[in-house]
Amino acid sequence: MKFDGPLLKSTTIDFDVGRFCIELAKKLFPIYRSITGQGVRDTLAHIKHQLPTLNICEVKSGTRVFDWTVPDEWIIRDAYVTDVSGLKIIDFRNNNLHLVGYSEPVDKWLDLDELDAHLYSNPDQPTAIPYVTSYYERRWGFCLTHNQRQSLSPDLYHAVVDSELRMGVLNFGELILPGQTTQEILLSTYICHPSMANNELSGPVVTVALAKWLMSLPHRRFTYRIVFIPETIGSITYLSQNLDHLKRNVVAGFNVTCVGDNRCYSYLPSRDGDTLSDRAALHVLKHIEPNFKRYTWMDRGSDERQYCSPGVDLPIATIMRSKYGEYKEYHTSHDDFSVVTEQGLAGGFEALRQAIETIENNVKLRMTVLCEPQLGKRGLYPNFNSQELYDQTIRMTMDAISFCDGNRDLLEIAELMGVPISRLVNALQPILNEGLLEPSLL
Amino acid sequence: MKFDGPLLKSTTIDFDVGRFCIELAKKLFPIYRSITGQGVRDTLAHIKHQLPTLNICEVKSGTRVFDWTVPDEWIIRDAYVTDVSGLKIIDFRNNNLHLVGYSEPVDKWLDLDELDAHLYSNPDQPTAIPYVTSYYERRWGFCLTHNQRQSLSPDLYHAVVDSELRMGVLNFGELILPGQTTQEILLSTYICHPSMANNELSGPVVTVALAKWLMSLPHRRFTYRIVFIPETIGSITYLSQNLDHLKRNVVAGFNVTCVGDNRCYSYLPSRDGDTLSDRAALHVLKHIEPNFKRYTWMDRGSDERQYCSPGVDLPIATIMRSKYGEYKEYHTSHDDFSVVTEQGLAGGFEALRQAIETIENNVKLRMTVLCEPQLGKRGLYPNFNSQELYDQTIRMTMDAISFCDGNRDLLEIAELMGVPISRLVNALQPILNEGLLEPSLL
Amino acid sequence: MKFDGPLLKSTTIDFDVGRFCIELAKKLFPIYRSITGQGVRDTLAHIKHQLPTLNICEVKSGTRVFDWTVPDEWIIRDAYVTDVSGLKIIDFRNNNLHLVGYSEPVDKWLDLDELDAHLYSNPDQPTAIPYVTSYYERRWGFCLTHNQRQSLSPDLYHAVVDSELRMGVLNFGELILPGQTTQEILLSTYICHPSMANNELSGPVVTVALAKWLMSLPHRRFTYRIVFIPETIGSITYLSQNLDHLKRNVVAGFNVTCVGDNRCYSYLPSRDGDTLSDRAALHVLKHIEPNFKRYTWMDRGSDERQYCSPGVDLPIATIMRSKYGEYKEYHTSHDDFSVVTEQGLAGGFEALRQAIETIENNVKLRMTVLCEPQLGKRGLYPNFNSQELYDQTIRMTMDAISFCDGNRDLLEIAELMGVPISRLVNALQPILNEGLLEPSLL
Repeated sequence: MKFDGPLLKSTTIDFDVGRFCIELAKKLFPIYRSITGQGVRDTLAHIKHQLPTLNICEVKSGTRVFDWTVPDEWIIRDAYVTDVSGLKIIDFRNNNLHLVGYSEPVDKWLDLDELDAHLYSNPDQPTAIPYVTSYYERRWGFCLTHNQRQSLSPDLYHAVVDSELRMGVLNFGELILPGQTTQEILLSTYICHPSMANNELSGPVVTVALAKWLMSLPHRRFTYRIVFIPETIGSITYLSQNLDHLKRNVVAGFNVTCVGDNRCYSYLPSRDGDTLSDRAALHVLKHIEPNFKRYTWMDRGSDERQYCSPGVDLPIATIMRSKYGEYKEYHTSHDDFSVVTEQGLAGGFEALRQAIETIENNVKLRMTVLCEPQLGKRGLYPNFNSQELYDQTIRMTMDAISFCDGNRDLLEIAELMGVPISRLVNALQPILNEGLLEPSLL
Repeated sequence: MKFDGPLLKSTTIDFDVGRFCIELAKKLFPIYRSITGQGVRDTLAHIKHQLPTLNICEVKSGTRVFDWTVPDEWIIRDAYVTDVSGLKIIDFRNNNLHLVGYSEPVDKWLDLDELDAHLYSNPDQPTAIPYVTSYYERRWGFCLTHNQRQSLSPDLYHAVVDSELRMGVLNFGELILPGQTTQEILLSTYICHPSMANNELSGPVVTVALAKWLMSLPHRRFTYRIVFIPETIGSITYLSQNLDHLKRNVVAGFNVTCVGDNRCYSYLPSRDGDTLSDRAALHVLKHIEPNFKRYTWMDRGSDERQYCSPGVDLPIATIMRSKYGEYKEYHTSHDDFSVVTEQGLAGGFEALRQAIETIENNVKLRMTVLCEPQLGKRGLYPNFNSQELYDQTIRMTMDAISFCDGNRDLLEIAELMGVPISRLVNALQPILNEGLLEPSLL
Repeated sequence: MKFDGPLLKSTTIDFDVGRFCIELAKKLFPIYRSITGQGVRDTLAHIKHQLPTLNICEVKSGTRVFDWTVPDEWIIRDAYVTDVSGLKIIDFRNNNLHLVGYSEPVDKWLDLDELDAHLYSNPDQPTAIPYVTSYYERRWGFCLTHNQRQSLSPDLYHAVVDSELRMGVLNFGELILPGQTTQEILLSTYICHPSMANNELSGPVVTVALAKWLMSLPHRRFTYRIVFIPETIGSITYLSQNLDHLKRNVVAGFNVTCVGDNRCYSYLPSRDGDTLSDRAALHVLKHIEPNFKRYTWMDRGSDERQYCSPGVDLPIATIMRSKYGEYKEYHTSHDDFSVVTEQGLAGGFEALRQAIETIENNVKLRMTVLCEPQLGKRGLYPNFNSQELYDQTIRMTMDAISFCDGNRDLLEIAELMGVPISRLVNALQPILNEGLLEPSLL
């Protein structure tokens, strides 16, 4: 691939990312999302308001997508449990986690034992409502705090789920930002989780912020493909419709999830583990927070399972703050805005932004002259042989030059030198300006 | 190579391996073996009794085999030393280690000094008779305990060796067990050591047990070539007669030696160190006994010296219990059935059996569908999203599937997952049964 | 490459290397050297006296050499500072480090403040005169001890530099020692430093000694190209004139610098880090002094900057005693014969000599027979099976043979065996003599 533009210098972000993200997240939080239905459409409408060129797509229920079938659409109108007096003791309208996702309709009186078979709580977190779904098997159920469950008296209860499963569509959003080449960077995030903040509103809102930043750039080397999809069935559907194009064009990408709390940074590799995405993620995280957590492919759990599956083989890695499954509020009503903060979201954004910038800047350069250039005659080299001055000014430039052999890319050189690629780019800029470096074929 | 059969599930062994081995070893123990002669033939006759299709071969003395010549056959009728009264104080008939192997004939009276030049004992093990041979230089000598040697009085002694060297043959046994392919696994063991148990009756008897197990299998992917030979000259002879065939067909193999004591497990690599045999041996031993001893090629000392020599280059590794040269009873009369036990032999057998099973099962598989399969519709996936249930049931299956890209073999996948290949095979079996996996070209 | 001669056995050096080097260094020490001028010519004349076939070359000022231009020649006739009484308080004739190299002419009275702007001293080493140059920017200046600088009274001073810059030549010396092949080993050292001993008279004098040793050898596998050049501009000039030839022929080489003190050994890699030169240097140093200092390419600072620059890519590594920049006397008047000693020079010579011998001997051999050879019939193998005797005598030979597969070179085999290549060569010599080994194509 030819590199035919200046390197991407660190850009000013022209909006307050943390605030933008938290405000958008708070708007989206109350919407009840599942893998299909009105909640997904409402969420996509909010996102399109931010990104007007977003294309909202639909695929019909019953469509075969590889080994799967697009499910019926699930409509939920109301769901509650009353006690014998008619008092709603569990009410989906109070907290949408109370209902097991994709619950089938029910309207009946049960005694406590019968009801209990349909209740879900977590004794280890007695004040949290757990998040439970049953997409592909017909059931109904309610989730509640373990404390509440233990307080239920042996009495009669009225359980009502006013839901419906019918032919409909699976929705997703797709945004294409063209670049200088047709090679693509894929960003994927999911919009199928109800009211939880880190997993998963942080992913969609940070992805919207990344899209806004990318749109503000004076030039982009790569084309960006940004998808907002339901997890698993969404990525499978999207892959089934775009596999050839994606395999031909995607050179890097990230699954954007769990990027909202301010506690740690995490990395989960692609299956290959050594793609450009992995290299960029590891490079960036090492310089942001050397003690970031490294997970392995064995710890995977989101759409990388599809993107990196055998035969699909896309180079998708994951940069996170606290990883799904690894923080105590995960998949409960406690995953709220006490967990996800402006600082947390801004940090998640920044790590991904730097990873993208790393990939944009990861060219292979070679010197246009043999031996070391005479920087002195260009005013770039202090002529007096003071070691100290030399060390402070142009040692990094000379080191960088010495590695620019046209074979090593800048990411490899930055790793060899132990410096962030952004500093390397700065050190090389004067040499580029003098025409002493030229791109070599990637 | 095409894989066209079900995987080899762990098989029931239909005989008591430890007992079988110890009984056969005790039968073979008293026979006086050397690299040629009647002892070898008697030993092979016992083995043929267990393995009726064993082919007993012979090569004439004087035959050129690479840089060597098949030696004359050595006949030994009697050997002893008497004191001046005629009392036999060293008698080959009491313990056949008393005689230096391939001793030339002698019948003469000597004083103690003269006799002493022909005596061998080990001051570090004063109660053990050492094992000494002199195949390619004409000598005679007697071995005795150091205690006995020190008790000899300065007197006259009568030394008699009634031996003969004459044109004859070198014998060995060869058993071929055909499999689904002409690719071969070579098992080689040696039958040239007199009355010692670990080094070396354990090798031949465990090899007989392995052959019986292999013959009992419903199918074998590979053809098995099992040879019972004298060490060094035997393997050189066998290679000189079969080199092209072996280089073309042998994909893995083991030199079976020192597999009888119950003290530790050991591994000695092929010269290459990374052949299929090495990978299988390391994998199996790691799961049997993580603290097994790893030797290097520099520690070699048996027929791998020939099988792996430059230009021969066969992939032969060695799995042992206590390695030759590394246990105190080695090459002495103390290497007996206090060292070699039923448990020791059964453990040696089991490690080799698992290594062979590993190679039989080491196929490359690839998914027949893209993305993760929907296991739920096949009843293979608990639909409810309880992490715990998921972890306990099909996480290993999903992990295994995610690596089945047709490039990695199952051994590599088992290593990546940190599980024995046998567990991996079990986890993949339901997926194979559903037709979701197919073999790829090796 | 074909190997068509006996291995190079360790050779007797027919002169006292340490004494030879120190005497030559003391002769060259007083000469005032810079990158051009009479001092370089005088130095080369001394070297030619030792190496009569040395070819002394010149390149005209103004010649373009890659990104650089050969500078004007600098003539220095006198340089001093007097106090108001006319007393010379700084005199270039007392110590030639007093003058900043390439100082432009000056003849004027200055007060202390004005003078001070032209003075250089080092507060951290108050009794040392620092070494300062200004090749490519017009300045004048004097260097002095910090103690002297602080003692100067606020008075008038007369600064005189009687120098001249004019069209002239850049000189260097080149010695070619033909070998059995046209493949070359390059030795490069620099002759542009004034009166300092380790950096840099040790390099030129050790290189002269190496050349004398190489000329004394009965045969050389490689052709040797030995250059005595001014640093940086000299290597750039030499490369610009010989690039194609060097890239085609040079298989290994060393930049010879800082090889004179007896304090430690150091290694600085080529840019590639894994060339034959690097392998030989690491092998030799490991066996001379296991705790030798390993620098990285980031620590480079001499002509390897040019030889290994992108597009030049020569396999040049550096073996040193105390590295430039890393010892306290570096680039001061203290770098004298209290630092550089006979022992230090002899040790630097010996490390480089062994590295060269390693490269000469680094052939690929293969056995001419299959399986282990029968050494006994050739009188090379003790026939009696005593392990101890075996271990002491021919275990190393047998190990070496087992690795001679025609693919591994002797350096790799020596590393595998953990022995110096010189011992490996000795162990293989009897086998070579028997015709059991033959060279394979490199």
